[in-house]
Amino acid sequence: MRIIRFLYNKNIHWGLIKEDCAVILKGEPFKNIKLTAKKVPLTKIKLLPPATPTKIVLAGLNYKDHAKELKMPLPKNPILFLKPITTLIAHGEPIIYPKGVGQLDYEGELAIIIKKKGKDIKPKDVSRYILGYTCLNDVTARDLQKTDGQWTRSKSFDTFCPLGPWIETSIDPRNIAIRLWLNGILKQSSSTKEFIFNVDYLVSFISKAMTLYPGDVVSTGTPFGVGPMKKGDSVEVEIENIGKLSNYIK
Amino acid sequence: MRIIRFLYNKNIHWGLIKEDCAVILKGEPFKNIKLTAKKVPLTKIKLLPPATPTKIVLAGLNYKDHAKELKMPLPKNPILFLKPITTLIAHGEPIIYPKGVGQLDYEGELAIIIKKKGKDIKPKDVSRYILGYTCLNDVTARDLQKTDGQWTRSKSFDTFCPLGPWIETSIDPRNIAIRLWLNGILKQSSSTKEFIFNVDYLVSFISKAMTLYPGDVVSTGTPFGVGPMKKGDSVEVEIENIGKLSNYIK
Repeated sequence: MRIIRFLYNKNIHWGLIKEDCAVILKGEPFKNIKLTAKKVPLTKIKLLPPATPTKIVLAGLNYKDHAKELKMPLPKNPILFLKPITTLIAHGEPIIYPKGVGQLDYEGELAIIIKKKGKDIKPKDVSRYILGYTCLNDVTARDLQKTDGQWTRSKSFDTFCPLGPWIETSIDPRNIAIRLWLNGILKQSSSTKEFIFNVDYLVSFISKAMTLYPGDVVSTGTPFGVGPMKKGDSVEVEIENIGKLSNYIK
Repeated sequence: MRIIRFLYNKNIHWGLIKEDCAVILKGEPFKNIKLTAKKVPLTKIKLLPPATPTKIVLAGLNYKDHAKELKMPLPKNPILFLKPITTLIAHGEPIIYPKGVGQLDYEGELAIIIKKKGKDIKPKDVSRYILGYTCLNDVTARDLQKTDGQWTRSKSFDTFCPLGPWIETSIDPRNIAIRLWLNGILKQSSSTKEFIFNVDYLVSFISKAMTLYPGDVVSTGTPFGVGPMKKGDSVEVEIENIGKLSNYIK
Protein backbone atom coordinates (compact mmCIF):
# COMPACT_ATOMS: atom_id res chain seq x y z
CA MET A 1 0.00 0.00 0.00
CA ARG A 2 1.03 3.57 -0.63
CA ILE A 3 -0.26 5.88 2.08
CA ILE A 4 -0.32 9.63 1.47
CA ARG A 5 -1.19 12.68 3.51
CA PHE A 6 -2.57 15.49 1.44
CA LEU A 7 -4.47 18.73 1.13
CA TYR A 8 -7.71 18.73 -0.85
CA ASN A 9 -10.25 21.53 -0.82
CA LYS A 10 -8.37 23.11 2.12
CA ASN A 11 -8.80 19.98 4.25
CA ILE A 12 -6.02 17.63 5.33
CA HIS A 13 -6.64 13.92 4.67
CA TRP A 14 -4.84 10.62 4.80
CA GLY A 15 -5.36 8.44 1.73
CA LEU A 16 -4.33 5.36 -0.22
CA ILE A 17 -3.11 5.64 -3.78
CA LYS A 18 -5.21 3.52 -6.17
CA GLU A 19 -4.18 4.03 -9.78
CA ASP A 20 -4.56 7.76 -10.50
CA CYS A 21 -6.69 8.53 -7.44
CA ALA A 22 -6.38 8.94 -3.69
CA VAL A 23 -8.97 7.01 -1.71
CA ILE A 24 -9.62 9.04 1.42
CA LEU A 25 -9.10 7.23 4.74
CA LYS A 26 -11.24 7.56 7.79
CA GLY A 27 -8.90 9.10 10.36
CA GLU A 28 -5.22 8.21 10.61
CA PRO A 29 -3.56 5.07 9.19
CA PHE A 30 -1.88 3.91 12.41
CA LYS A 31 -4.39 1.48 13.92
CA ASN A 32 -6.55 0.18 11.11
CA ILE A 33 -6.69 1.43 7.56
CA LYS A 34 -10.35 2.30 6.99
CA LEU A 35 -11.27 3.42 3.49
CA THR A 36 -14.09 5.87 2.90
CA ALA A 37 -16.13 5.77 -0.31
CA LYS A 38 -14.59 9.06 -1.40
CA LYS A 39 -11.76 9.29 -3.92
CA VAL A 40 -10.09 12.25 -5.61
CA PRO A 41 -7.79 12.47 -8.63
CA LEU A 42 -4.10 12.77 -7.72
CA THR A 43 -3.91 15.82 -10.00
CA LYS A 44 -6.26 17.69 -7.66
CA ILE A 45 -4.34 17.18 -4.41
CA LYS A 46 -1.27 18.73 -2.78
CA LEU A 47 0.98 16.19 -1.08
CA LEU A 48 1.98 16.86 2.54
CA PRO A 49 4.79 15.20 4.50
CA PRO A 50 3.43 11.69 5.18
CA ALA A 51 3.80 11.99 8.97
CA THR A 52 3.09 14.42 11.81
CA PRO A 53 5.79 13.22 14.17
CA THR A 54 6.38 14.18 17.77
CA LYS A 55 10.07 13.66 16.96
CA ILE A 56 12.40 12.98 14.05
CA VAL A 57 15.35 10.80 15.10
CA LEU A 58 18.24 10.25 12.71
CA ALA A 59 21.26 8.01 12.79
CA GLY A 60 24.59 9.40 11.65
CA LEU A 61 27.14 7.29 9.85
CA ASN A 62 25.14 4.11 9.22
CA TYR A 63 26.50 3.00 5.82
CA LYS A 64 29.81 1.18 5.57
CA ASP A 65 30.56 2.96 2.27
CA HIS A 66 29.91 6.41 3.83
CA ALA A 67 32.14 5.66 6.84
CA LYS A 68 34.88 4.65 4.40
CA GLU A 69 34.34 7.87 2.40
CA LEU A 70 34.78 9.94 5.58
CA LYS A 71 37.75 7.77 6.67
CA MET A 72 35.99 7.19 9.97
CA PRO A 73 36.03 3.93 11.93
CA LEU A 74 32.70 2.07 12.08
CA PRO A 75 30.80 3.29 15.15
CA LYS A 76 30.11 0.81 17.96
CA ASN A 77 26.64 2.27 18.53
CA PRO A 78 24.35 4.32 16.30
CA ILE A 79 25.08 8.03 16.73
CA LEU A 80 21.72 9.78 17.11
CA PHE A 81 20.50 13.31 16.53
CA LEU A 82 17.14 15.03 16.24
CA LYS A 83 15.59 17.45 13.79
CA PRO A 84 12.78 19.75 14.98
CA ILE A 85 9.45 19.23 13.21
CA THR A 86 9.78 22.71 11.69
CA THR A 87 12.27 21.13 9.27
CA LEU A 88 9.58 19.02 7.54
CA ILE A 89 8.55 19.78 3.96
CA ALA A 90 6.70 17.70 1.39
CA HIS A 91 7.58 16.32 -2.02
CA GLY A 92 7.77 19.22 -4.47
CA GLU A 93 8.40 21.94 -1.90
CA PRO A 94 11.49 24.19 -1.80
CA ILE A 95 14.46 23.76 0.52
CA ILE A 96 15.35 27.30 1.62
CA TYR A 97 19.09 28.06 1.41
CA PRO A 98 19.66 29.98 4.67
CA LYS A 99 21.58 33.23 4.85
CA GLY A 100 24.99 32.70 6.40
CA VAL A 101 25.33 29.06 5.34
CA GLY A 102 28.41 28.36 3.24
CA GLN A 103 27.75 24.78 2.11
CA LEU A 104 24.36 23.11 1.88
CA ASP A 105 24.61 19.34 1.39
CA TYR A 106 22.08 16.67 0.44
CA GLU A 107 21.95 13.33 2.25
CA GLY A 108 19.51 10.80 0.79
CA GLU A 109 18.06 8.43 3.40
CA LEU A 110 15.51 5.66 3.95
CA ALA A 111 13.09 6.77 6.69
CA ILE A 112 10.90 4.60 8.90
CA ILE A 113 7.40 5.71 9.96
CA ILE A 114 6.45 4.36 13.38
CA LYS A 115 3.04 2.68 13.69
CA LYS A 116 2.47 2.39 17.43
CA LYS A 117 3.76 3.51 20.79
CA GLY A 118 6.80 1.58 21.95
CA LYS A 119 9.60 1.63 24.53
CA ASP A 120 12.40 -0.94 24.96
CA ILE A 121 11.30 -2.74 21.81
CA LYS A 122 13.21 -5.97 21.14
CA PRO A 123 14.83 -6.23 17.69
CA LYS A 124 12.66 -9.25 16.81
CA ASP A 125 9.50 -7.22 17.56
CA VAL A 126 10.47 -4.03 15.68
CA SER A 127 8.60 -4.85 12.46
CA ARG A 128 5.29 -4.75 14.35
CA TYR A 129 6.02 -1.13 15.29
CA ILE A 130 6.64 0.04 11.72
CA LEU A 131 3.90 1.38 9.48
CA GLY A 132 6.15 1.70 6.44
CA TYR A 133 9.02 3.48 4.75
CA THR A 134 9.59 6.68 2.81
CA CYS A 135 12.39 8.85 1.42
CA LEU A 136 14.08 11.57 3.46
CA ASN A 137 16.68 14.18 2.59
CA ASP A 138 18.78 15.03 5.65
CA VAL A 139 19.74 18.51 4.43
CA THR A 140 22.85 19.70 6.26
CA ALA A 141 24.72 23.00 6.49
CA ARG A 142 28.08 21.25 6.27
CA ASP A 143 30.15 24.30 7.27
CA LEU A 144 28.13 24.83 10.46
CA GLN A 145 28.26 21.12 11.25
CA LYS A 146 32.05 21.34 11.31
CA THR A 147 32.36 24.61 13.25
CA ASP A 148 29.65 23.74 15.83
CA GLY A 149 30.93 20.20 16.46
CA GLN A 150 27.44 19.27 17.63
CA TRP A 151 25.34 18.49 14.53
CA THR A 152 21.96 19.81 15.68
CA ARG A 153 21.96 23.38 14.38
CA SER A 154 23.41 22.46 10.98
CA LYS A 155 20.53 20.03 10.43
CA SER A 156 17.70 21.99 12.06
CA PHE A 157 16.97 24.94 9.76
CA ASP A 158 13.38 25.25 8.53
CA THR A 159 12.80 23.09 5.39
CA PHE A 160 15.84 20.84 6.08
CA CYS A 161 13.77 17.64 6.20
CA PRO A 162 12.03 16.84 2.90
CA LEU A 163 9.96 13.68 3.52
CA GLY A 164 7.85 11.62 1.13
CA PRO A 165 6.29 11.36 -1.32
CA TRP A 166 4.33 8.59 0.46
CA ILE A 167 4.63 5.72 2.91
CA GLU A 168 5.17 2.35 1.24
CA THR A 169 4.04 -0.39 3.63
CA SER A 170 5.35 -3.49 1.83
CA ILE A 171 9.12 -3.11 1.75
CA ASP A 172 11.85 -5.44 2.87
CA PRO A 173 14.46 -2.87 4.01
CA ARG A 174 17.39 -5.29 4.05
CA ASN A 175 18.60 -4.89 0.48
CA ILE A 176 17.02 -2.10 -1.51
CA ALA A 177 18.71 0.42 -3.77
CA ILE A 178 18.98 4.07 -2.69
CA ARG A 179 20.00 6.81 -5.11
CA LEU A 180 20.24 10.58 -5.06
CA TRP A 181 20.07 12.73 -8.19
CA LEU A 182 21.20 16.37 -8.33
CA ASN A 183 19.87 18.14 -11.40
CA GLY A 184 19.37 14.71 -12.95
CA ILE A 185 22.95 13.57 -12.30
CA LEU A 186 23.44 10.49 -10.11
CA LYS A 187 25.36 11.49 -6.94
CA GLN A 188 24.61 8.75 -4.41
CA SER A 189 24.01 5.11 -5.30
CA SER A 190 24.08 2.39 -2.69
CA SER A 191 21.98 -0.27 -1.05
CA THR A 192 20.64 -0.75 2.43
CA LYS A 193 22.75 -3.91 2.58
CA GLU A 194 25.57 -1.45 3.40
CA PHE A 195 23.82 -0.59 6.72
CA ILE A 196 26.09 -0.84 9.74
CA PHE A 197 23.00 -1.10 11.99
CA ASN A 198 19.90 -2.61 10.43
CA VAL A 199 16.35 -1.34 10.92
CA ASP A 200 15.55 -3.79 13.72
CA TYR A 201 18.69 -2.93 15.66
CA LEU A 202 18.34 0.81 15.11
CA VAL A 203 14.70 1.16 16.19
CA SER A 204 15.31 -1.12 19.18
CA PHE A 205 18.36 0.94 20.16
CA ILE A 206 16.48 4.26 19.94
CA SER A 207 13.54 2.86 21.89
CA LYS A 208 15.85 2.04 24.81
CA ALA A 209 16.20 5.80 25.30
CA MET A 210 12.93 7.30 24.15
CA THR A 211 9.33 6.19 23.79
CA LEU A 212 8.34 6.16 20.13
CA TYR A 213 4.87 7.33 19.06
CA PRO A 214 2.73 6.71 15.98
CA GLY A 215 3.97 8.95 13.18
CA ASP A 216 7.44 9.40 14.65
CA VAL A 217 10.18 9.33 12.02
CA VAL A 218 13.41 7.33 12.33
CA SER A 219 15.95 7.85 9.58
CA THR A 220 18.64 5.35 8.79
CA GLY A 221 21.64 7.41 7.66
CA THR A 222 23.07 8.31 4.26
CA PRO A 223 25.38 6.36 1.96
CA PHE A 224 28.57 7.36 0.12
CA GLY A 225 28.53 10.44 -2.10
CA VAL A 226 27.21 13.41 -0.10
CA GLY A 227 27.84 16.80 -1.65
CA PRO A 228 26.74 20.40 -2.03
CA MET A 229 23.67 22.00 -3.62
CA LYS A 230 23.16 25.57 -4.79
CA LYS A 231 20.12 27.77 -5.37
CA GLY A 232 18.03 26.58 -8.30
CA ASP A 233 19.21 22.95 -8.05
CA SER A 234 16.72 20.09 -8.08
CA VAL A 235 17.39 17.16 -5.77
CA GLU A 236 15.75 13.74 -5.80
CA VAL A 237 16.01 10.86 -3.36
CA GLU A 238 14.97 7.62 -5.05
CA ILE A 239 14.45 4.39 -3.16
CA GLU A 240 13.66 1.07 -4.79
CA ASN A 241 9.99 0.06 -4.43
CA ILE A 242 9.13 3.43 -2.89
CA GLY A 243 9.72 6.11 -5.51
CA LYS A 244 11.25 9.55 -5.83
CA LEU A 245 11.18 12.46 -3.39
CA SER A 246 11.81 15.63 -5.44
CA ASN A 247 12.63 19.09 -4.10
CA TYR A 248 14.48 22.17 -5.25
CA ILE A 249 16.70 24.77 -3.63
CA LYS A 250 15.42 28.32 -3.28
CA MET B 1 1.95 36.27 37.20
CA ARG B 2 2.54 32.60 37.86
CA ILE B 3 1.02 30.47 35.13
CA ILE B 4 0.50 26.77 35.74
CA ARG B 5 -0.70 23.82 33.69
CA PHE B 6 -2.42 21.19 35.75
CA LEU B 7 -4.69 18.21 36.03
CA TYR B 8 -7.92 18.59 37.97
CA ASN B 9 -10.79 16.11 37.91
CA LYS B 10 -9.06 14.31 34.99
CA ASN B 11 -9.10 17.47 32.86
CA ILE B 12 -6.05 19.48 31.81
CA HIS B 13 -6.23 23.22 32.47
CA TRP B 14 -4.06 26.28 32.36
CA GLY B 15 -4.34 28.52 35.41
CA LEU B 16 -2.98 31.47 37.38
CA ILE B 17 -1.84 31.05 40.95
CA LYS B 18 -3.71 33.40 43.33
CA GLU B 19 -2.78 32.76 46.94
CA ASP B 20 -3.61 29.11 47.65
CA CYS B 21 -5.77 28.62 44.57
CA ALA B 22 -5.46 28.15 40.81
CA VAL B 23 -7.80 30.37 38.83
CA ILE B 24 -8.65 28.43 35.68
CA LEU B 25 -7.89 30.16 32.36
CA LYS B 26 -10.03 30.09 29.29
CA GLY B 27 -7.83 28.28 26.74
CA GLU B 28 -4.09 28.74 26.53
CA PRO B 29 -2.09 31.65 27.97
CA PHE B 30 -0.25 32.61 24.78
CA LYS B 31 -2.43 35.31 23.24
CA ASN B 32 -4.46 36.85 26.03
CA ILE B 33 -4.78 35.64 29.57
CA LYS B 34 -8.52 35.19 30.09
CA LEU B 35 -9.61 34.20 33.59
CA THR B 36 -12.70 32.10 34.15
CA ALA B 37 -14.75 32.44 37.33
CA LYS B 38 -13.62 28.98 38.44
CA LYS B 39 -10.87 28.43 41.01
CA VAL B 40 -9.58 25.31 42.71
CA PRO B 41 -7.34 24.83 45.76
CA LEU B 42 -3.70 24.09 44.89
CA THR B 43 -3.91 21.05 47.17
CA LYS B 44 -6.44 19.46 44.79
CA ILE B 45 -4.44 19.73 41.57
CA LYS B 46 -1.55 17.83 39.98
CA LEU B 47 1.01 20.09 38.31
CA LEU B 48 1.96 19.30 34.69
CA PRO B 49 4.97 20.62 32.76
CA PRO B 50 4.02 24.27 32.07
CA ALA B 51 4.41 23.92 28.29
CA THR B 52 3.43 21.59 25.45
CA PRO B 53 6.30 22.45 23.11
CA THR B 54 6.82 21.43 19.51
CA LYS B 55 10.52 21.51 20.36
CA ILE B 56 12.88 21.91 23.30
CA VAL B 57 16.08 23.73 22.28
CA LEU B 58 18.99 23.94 24.70
CA ALA B 59 22.26 25.80 24.66
CA GLY B 60 25.38 24.02 25.84
CA LEU B 61 28.16 25.81 27.66
CA ASN B 62 26.54 29.22 28.26
CA TYR B 63 27.98 30.15 31.68
CA LYS B 64 31.49 31.55 31.95
CA ASP B 65 31.98 29.71 35.27
CA HIS B 66 30.95 26.35 33.70
CA ALA B 67 33.28 26.82 30.70
CA LYS B 68 36.09 27.50 33.17
CA GLU B 69 35.16 24.37 35.17
CA LEU B 70 35.38 22.26 32.00
CA LYS B 71 38.61 24.05 30.95
CA MET B 72 36.97 24.84 27.62
CA PRO B 73 37.42 28.08 25.67
CA LEU B 74 34.33 30.31 25.48
CA PRO B 75 32.32 29.33 22.39
CA LYS B 76 31.95 31.89 19.58
CA ASN B 77 28.34 30.85 18.96
CA PRO B 78 25.80 29.10 21.17
CA ILE B 79 26.08 25.31 20.74
CA LEU B 80 22.56 23.97 20.33
CA PHE B 81 20.92 20.62 20.91
CA LEU B 82 17.36 19.32 21.16
CA LYS B 83 15.52 17.08 23.58
CA PRO B 84 12.47 15.15 22.37
CA ILE B 85 9.21 16.06 24.10
CA THR B 86 9.10 12.57 25.62
CA THR B 87 11.74 13.84 28.07
CA LEU B 88 9.30 16.25 29.77
CA ILE B 89 8.16 15.63 33.34
CA ALA B 90 6.53 17.92 35.90
CA HIS B 91 7.54 19.18 39.32
CA GLY B 92 7.35 16.29 41.77
CA GLU B 93 7.69 13.51 39.21
CA PRO B 94 10.49 10.92 39.13
CA ILE B 95 13.52 10.98 36.85
CA ILE B 96 13.99 7.36 35.76
CA TYR B 97 17.61 6.15 36.00
CA PRO B 98 17.98 4.19 32.74
CA LYS B 99 19.49 0.73 32.58
CA GLY B 100 22.97 0.83 31.08
CA VAL B 101 23.73 4.41 32.14
CA GLY B 102 26.84 4.75 34.28
CA GLN B 103 26.60 8.37 35.40
CA LEU B 104 23.43 10.44 35.59
CA ASP B 105 24.11 14.16 36.07
CA TYR B 106 21.91 17.11 37.02
CA GLU B 107 22.20 20.44 35.19
CA GLY B 108 20.06 23.25 36.63
CA GLU B 109 18.92 25.77 34.00
CA LEU B 110 16.72 28.81 33.42
CA ALA B 111 14.22 28.00 30.65
CA ILE B 112 12.33 30.42 28.42
CA ILE B 113 8.73 29.72 27.33
CA ILE B 114 7.99 31.17 23.89
CA LYS B 115 4.80 33.25 23.55
CA LYS B 116 4.31 33.59 19.82
CA LYS B 117 5.49 32.33 16.46
CA GLY B 118 8.76 33.90 15.35
CA LYS B 119 11.56 33.51 12.79
CA ASP B 120 14.64 35.73 12.39
CA ILE B 121 13.73 37.65 15.54
CA LYS B 122 16.00 40.63 16.21
CA PRO B 123 17.61 40.70 19.68
CA LYS B 124 15.80 43.94 20.54
CA ASP B 125 12.43 42.31 19.75
CA VAL B 126 13.00 39.03 21.65
CA SER B 127 11.19 40.08 24.85
CA ARG B 128 7.91 40.36 22.92
CA TYR B 129 8.24 36.69 21.98
CA ILE B 130 8.67 35.45 25.56
CA LEU B 131 5.77 34.45 27.78
CA GLY B 132 7.93 33.86 30.83
CA TYR B 133 10.54 31.75 32.56
CA THR B 134 10.71 28.52 34.50
CA CYS B 135 13.23 26.03 35.93
CA LEU B 136 14.60 23.13 33.90
CA ASN B 137 16.87 20.22 34.80
CA ASP B 138 18.89 19.13 31.75
CA VAL B 139 19.41 15.56 32.99
CA THR B 140 22.38 14.01 31.19
CA ALA B 141 23.85 10.51 30.97
CA ARG B 142 27.39 11.83 31.23
CA ASP B 143 29.10 8.58 30.26
CA LEU B 144 27.05 8.27 27.05
CA GLN B 145 27.64 11.95 26.26
CA LYS B 146 31.36 11.26 26.24
CA THR B 147 31.32 8.00 24.29
CA ASP B 148 28.75 9.17 21.69
CA GLY B 149 30.44 12.53 21.06
CA GLN B 150 27.10 13.87 19.86
CA TRP B 151 25.08 14.91 22.94
CA THR B 152 21.59 13.99 21.77
CA ARG B 153 21.15 10.44 23.06
CA SER B 154 22.66 11.19 26.47
CA LYS B 155 20.09 13.95 27.01
CA SER B 156 17.06 12.33 25.34
CA PHE B 157 15.96 9.51 27.63
CA ASP B 158 12.35 9.62 28.83
CA THR B 159 11.99 11.83 31.96
CA PHE B 160 15.29 13.70 31.29
CA CYS B 161 13.61 17.12 31.17
CA PRO B 162 11.94 18.13 34.43
CA LEU B 163 10.27 21.51 33.80
CA GLY B 164 8.39 23.81 36.16
CA PRO B 165 6.84 24.26 38.59
CA TRP B 166 5.24 27.24 36.81
CA ILE B 167 5.91 30.05 34.34
CA GLU B 168 6.82 33.34 36.02
CA THR B 169 6.03 36.19 33.63
CA SER B 170 7.70 39.11 35.43
CA ILE B 171 11.39 38.29 35.55
CA ASP B 172 14.40 40.29 34.46
CA PRO B 173 16.69 37.43 33.35
CA ARG B 174 19.90 39.48 33.33
CA ASN B 175 21.00 38.94 36.92
CA ILE B 176 19.09 36.36 38.90
CA ALA B 177 20.43 33.66 41.17
CA ILE B 178 20.29 30.02 40.10
CA ARG B 179 20.95 27.16 42.53
CA LEU B 180 20.75 23.39 42.49
CA TRP B 181 20.30 21.27 45.60
CA LEU B 182 20.99 17.53 45.76
CA ASN B 183 19.44 15.92 48.83
CA GLY B 184 19.31 19.41 50.38
CA ILE B 185 23.02 20.11 49.75
CA LEU B 186 23.88 23.11 47.56
CA LYS B 187 25.70 21.89 44.43
CA GLN B 188 25.31 24.69 41.87
CA SER B 189 25.13 28.37 42.76
CA SER B 190 25.57 31.05 40.16
CA SER B 191 23.81 33.95 38.49
CA THR B 192 22.56 34.58 34.99
CA LYS B 193 25.03 37.46 34.87
CA GLU B 194 27.55 34.69 34.07
CA PHE B 195 25.75 34.03 30.74
CA ILE B 196 28.07 34.01 27.74
CA PHE B 197 25.06 34.65 25.45
CA ASN B 198 22.14 36.51 26.99
CA VAL B 199 18.47 35.68 26.47
CA ASP B 200 17.99 38.21 23.65
CA TYR B 201 21.03 36.96 21.74
CA LEU B 202 20.23 33.30 22.30
CA VAL B 203 16.58 33.38 21.18
CA SER B 204 17.49 35.57 18.19
CA PHE B 205 20.28 33.15 17.24
CA ILE B 206 18.02 30.08 17.45
CA SER B 207 15.27 31.83 15.46
CA LYS B 208 17.71 32.36 12.57
CA ALA B 209 17.62 28.59 12.09
CA MET B 210 14.18 27.48 13.22
CA THR B 211 10.74 29.01 13.53
CA LEU B 212 9.73 29.16 17.17
CA TYR B 213 6.13 28.42 18.20
CA PRO B 214 4.04 29.29 21.27
CA GLY B 215 4.99 26.92 24.07
CA ASP B 216 8.39 26.06 22.64
CA VAL B 217 11.09 25.80 25.30
CA VAL B 218 14.53 27.41 25.03
CA SER B 219 16.97 26.60 27.81
CA THR B 220 19.93 28.76 28.63
CA GLY B 221 22.64 26.35 29.77
CA THR B 222 23.92 25.31 33.18
CA PRO B 223 26.44 26.96 35.53
CA PHE B 224 29.45 25.57 37.40
CA GLY B 225 29.01 22.52 39.61
CA VAL B 226 27.39 19.74 37.59
CA GLY B 227 27.58 16.30 39.14
CA PRO B 228 26.06 12.85 39.51
CA MET B 229 22.82 11.62 41.07
CA LYS B 230 21.87 8.16 42.26
CA LYS B 231 18.58 6.33 42.79
CA GLY B 232 16.63 7.77 45.70
CA ASP B 233 18.23 11.23 45.46
CA SER B 234 16.10 14.36 45.48
CA VAL B 235 17.13 17.19 43.17
CA GLU B 236 15.90 20.78 43.18
CA VAL B 237 16.54 23.61 40.74
CA GLU B 238 15.87 26.96 42.43
CA ILE B 239 15.76 30.22 40.51
CA GLU B 240 15.34 33.63 42.14
CA ASN B 241 11.83 35.06 41.74
CA ILE B 242 10.58 31.80 40.20
CA GLY B 243 10.81 29.07 42.82
CA LYS B 244 11.94 25.47 43.15
CA LEU B 245 11.54 22.59 40.72
CA SER B 246 11.79 19.37 42.77
CA ASN B 247 12.20 15.85 41.44
CA TYR B 248 13.65 12.57 42.60
CA ILE B 249 15.57 9.72 41.02
CA LYS B 250 13.89 6.35 40.67
